[in-house]
Amino acid sequence: MDNLERKTLLTHCSDERGLIAKITNICFKHQLNIIHNNEFVDNASGHFFMRTELEGTFDDKTLLADLDLALPTNSKRSLISSSRKKIVIMVTKEAHCLGDILMKAYDGSLDVEIAAVVGNYDKLQTLTERFDIPYHHISHEGLSREEHEEKMLEVIKGYDPRYVVLAKYMRVLTPNFVAQFPHKIINIHHSFLPAFIGAKPYQQAFDRGVKIIGATAHFVTNDLDEGPIIKQDVIPVDHNFSAADMAQAGRDVEKNVLSKALSKVVNDHVFVYGNKTVIL
Amino acid sequence: MDNLERKTLLTHCSDERGLIAKITNICFKHQLNIIHNNEFVDNASGHFFMRTELEGTFDDKTLLADLDLALPTNSKRSLISSSRKKIVIMVTKEAHCLGDILMKAYDGSLDVEIAAVVGNYDKLQTLTERFDIPYHHISHEGLSREEHEEKMLEVIKGYDPRYVVLAKYMRVLTPNFVAQFPHKIINIHHSFLPAFIGAKPYQQAFDRGVKIIGATAHFVTNDLDEGPIIKQDVIPVDHNFSAADMAQAGRDVEKNVLSKALSKVVNDHVFVYGNKTVIL
Amino acid sequence: MDNLERKTLLTHCSDERGLIAKITNICFKHQLNIIHNNEFVDNASGHFFMRTELEGTFDDKTLLADLDLALPTNSKRSLISSSRKKIVIMVTKEAHCLGDILMKAYDGSLDVEIAAVVGNYDKLQTLTERFDIPYHHISHEGLSREEHEEKMLEVIKGYDPRYVVLAKYMRVLTPNFVAQFPHKIINIHHSFLPAFIGAKPYQQAFDRGVKIIGATAHFVTNDLDEGPIIKQDVIPVDHNFSAADMAQAGRDVEKNVLSKALSKVVNDHVFVYGNKTVIL
Amino acid sequence: MDNLERKTLLTHCSDERGLIAKITNICFKHQLNIIHNNEFVDNASGHFFMRTELEGTFDDKTLLADLDLALPTNSKRSLISSSRKKIVIMVTKEAHCLGDILMKAYDGSLDVEIAAVVGNYDKLQTLTERFDIPYHHISHEGLSREEHEEKMLEVIKGYDPRYVVLAKYMRVLTPNFVAQFPHKIINIHHSFLPAFIGAKPYQQAFDRGVKIIGATAHFVTNDLDEGPIIKQDVIPVDHNFSAADMAQAGRDVEKNVLSKALSKVVNDHVFVYGNKTVIL
Repeated sequence: MDNLERKTLLTHCSDERGLIAKITNICFKHQLNIIHNNEFVDNASGHFFMRTELEGTFDDKTLLADLDLALPTNSKRSLISSSRKKIVIMVTKEAHCLGDILMKAYDGSLDVEIAAVVGNYDKLQTLTERFDIPYHHISHEGLSREEHEEKMLEVIKGYDPRYVVLAKYMRVLTPNFVAQFPHKIINIHHSFLPAFIGAKPYQQAFDRGVKIIGATAHFVTNDLDEGPIIKQDVIPVDHNFSAADMAQAGRDVEKNVLSKALSKVVNDHVFVYGNKTVIL
Repeated sequence: MDNLERKTLLTHCSDERGLIAKITNICFKHQLNIIHNNEFVDNASGHFFMRTELEGTFDDKTLLADLDLALPTNSKRSLISSSRKKIVIMVTKEAHCLGDILMKAYDGSLDVEIAAVVGNYDKLQTLTERFDIPYHHISHEGLSREEHEEKMLEVIKGYDPRYVVLAKYMRVLTPNFVAQFPHKIINIHHSFLPAFIGAKPYQQAFDRGVKIIGATAHFVTNDLDEGPIIKQDVIPVDHNFSAADMAQAGRDVEKNVLSKALSKVVNDHVFVYGNKTVIL
Repeated sequence: MDNLERKTLLTHCSDERGLIAKITNICFKHQLNIIHNNEFVDNASGHFFMRTELEGTFDDKTLLADLDLALPTNSKRSLISSSRKKIVIMVTKEAHCLGDILMKAYDGSLDVEIAAVVGNYDKLQTLTERFDIPYHHISHEGLSREEHEEKMLEVIKGYDPRYVVLAKYMRVLTPNFVAQFPHKIINIHHSFLPAFIGAKPYQQAFDRGVKIIGATAHFVTNDLDEGPIIKQDVIPVDHNFSAADMAQAGRDVEKNVLSKALSKVVNDHVFVYGNKTVIL
Repeated sequence: MDNLERKTLLTHCSDERGLIAKITNICFKHQLNIIHNNEFVDNASGHFFMRTELEGTFDDKTLLADLDLALPTNSKRSLISSSRKKIVIMVTKEAHCLGDILMKAYDGSLDVEIAAVVGNYDKLQTLTERFDIPYHHISHEGLSREEHEEKMLEVIKGYDPRYVVLAKYMRVLTPNFVAQFPHKIINIHHSFLPAFIGAKPYQQAFDRGVKIIGATAHFVTNDLDEGPIIKQDVIPVDHNFSAADMAQAGRDVEKNVLSKALSKVVNDHVFVYGNKTVIL
């Protein structure tokens, strides 16, 4: 059994009767074992999603061709190897999210290969290199936004990463940059109830006396902070928290939400559909 | 579309290749829409579980016969109408679990029909009757355990309930009673880390200085408090909690865990397999 | 010891050295036992808060006079009997928050006396009266907002409640109404990350694919939904939730947050300071 | 103000009227500012606890002498500098708890100085040294338990640590070792509801179908795993978790509980009284 491969088939299309039967029949015909299968129909949009973890000997081309014949014409399907995904992490100065991903990759609780870390400051270089991971310091100083991104793109693309993780990268990305990695860039930001716009959000949260502080991990699109949400969570705070304590609580929830979102993404559980995610 | 029925098909059997395809093919052949489908294989035991929510016009007999032909010989399948399930609740003196179920059934957040409440004391009669639900006070005084259960069984069976809920019914049931409702009796009890055996568990928990108090909802088997677990949760406590406060916290977590477990059960999400549950 | 009274002393004022000593010295002089004491200094504003639960024989007038002499001139202190607080609940049509408070008051897990329920519809009359609590149906139809509020105020004030609880009362209150109960009206509303303004918030939350839904309990001031926050919490949701399921999840978190906030308030744990609360 | 010191005064003794006044009067007399004050009376045992965070210029000897004069004869008090506490971490082979503490100390979210790591294997040496922290590999092979502990004690005592943290150190410590660090050794272990005794607890938890897995952090006493509990928490699991997945979930909750417990301890919030903790 050891030379059997594992792959995950993600399929989505308009819903119609018999889709599960069609897809699993094809897997059966290809003599593939279904290890896990999850399916979801969004009744509001009439859209069908299915995640199928398969084991066996794969003939990708024929399998996909068989699926294309059987499924509705608008169907999207991808067959993804279950091997460890390569990521590049982008950072600025804050260590908490990067450190959490580095340690979880190290101790095996997050199944990713960190190909490199790219930062517009050098503050996190030592930490990164302690884990034997290359760090590229690409300062934005003296460069236009486009020039800076061009330099980063060159480095990042050299690693051919499956995903780019913004682990508190504090600069806005241009549509051109985002377009290079459609639904492949994952960002994390703090979130408040109510929302606070503008500078010093933790000071505003403190002044307002909020009782919870949240974080949202999402795919990056050209709508800043408005891409499909992958994971959200909150942490309770109270009057004992200064604005600085609230910021620390925010860092805690940010790192937890980002690494949980990343885990779902790199294990091929996440569909993007419209501006939403379906996580199977 | 309004005269279409909804039913849930629960299937489990030894795992083998092609089961999902076989089952969904049969549903397809019967022109049934799959509203939700969830499947799970317990790789440790090689056992397959599938929950399929179907909509259409059902010919139950033919559908089940088709499934029996297609599936392994050890397969168990049931086709359950999605209509509201009838339950009978057994109580002693404590109001918290009964009150929570009564109110959730009233406001629609728990989809059950409470056919009756049976208590060995009359303390909860007024509360029950305020919700226009019959209350049967069947005292155990002067009766042997068997005589008492016989009287309760007669009343309960008169209602033909789908499930019997022990909402803090504080007497041990005999194997004969349990055997009348195999995997149909749901119980709730408090749980501690570490476990405390014997009388006054909250006093012991207090003396030990525990920081969490839990509750476990499970199906009742002849192993007291050892049947298949449906739901567990905990609530944090600290040094500010007296033994009485811990007991109150215990009541809070008990009622929440019981009503969540009950919701899963009455919406046909729960398989019992061996001494475990699979919740799809 | 049985004829000893219990009262809670809430003190707040500008911070200065020796305040705890001064207050506890006075309690000591009055031969009052301190059952619980909690103190907080908001270092940002330099403001001091102390909650002291006392037991003994009280001479309120002298005690408060002694405190006034000892404390800074801007100090506010109140000495509140620990007896059960009287509340009036205002409702419209939704049962979940009212039902939860009724049941918790009934089973003793929420220590309040519900003097009456006032509703602008009659839908919750039966539920209320089942708990032997008077229900006042005061329709707003054909009345100006002022006229309607005048009729409600007359009824509510007749009960002389310590707090007014808006358990999904769906009409905006005028500044005049709010001014009758300064920091005595508690409201609950749903909260989202990000925030959704306007009609059908759950539809918007669904369209946005949020992963958590929250609720905020706060005191009502003239800034709609912007008064001092008492309690916030969230509940996780996912792609399986329709807009209607999200609304149900929202009701669950609303009722939990409201009853927890109310418990803190009626047990005299909540200070209002500026637009924030300090909960000791 | 910059040359003012911060210290925390922990006091506990039999409860009697006027204790808060006495202690805060003495602080006032010493011209010390009270930054935070928390007090608790365990009414079951009639014992009083107070934590007072002070700022000013300290004359420790006089201050403590004044307290001794004023307080009951059984009182215990300690005046602890708020400077960063030195810890030594003991490990065996598992990285998760050590890695979490290393990273949190690095990014500033856990305020400790890790003086050294001592392991009976060398597996965690590289990880430790990447953070510029000395690692002492002291193998137990070929040594009696007493000889092994003697060698470790010599190394550990050389660092004069305030606390010793067992970050999955998998050998039982002798009473002699424990006696060197009374209430200064912190341990973490997994916890289950129900409890599973013996080897392979995660296999037993899997076989039993538990729905939560917990962890307990406690001070080490001679009662194995039975010392005063500092922190407990749980993580939900379900039928999708293999025994190995449950073990991974157990590691996650272990590291979170240990670092939260450690944070309370090193910030001087924890009293040990009898076999319990009071955390102020």
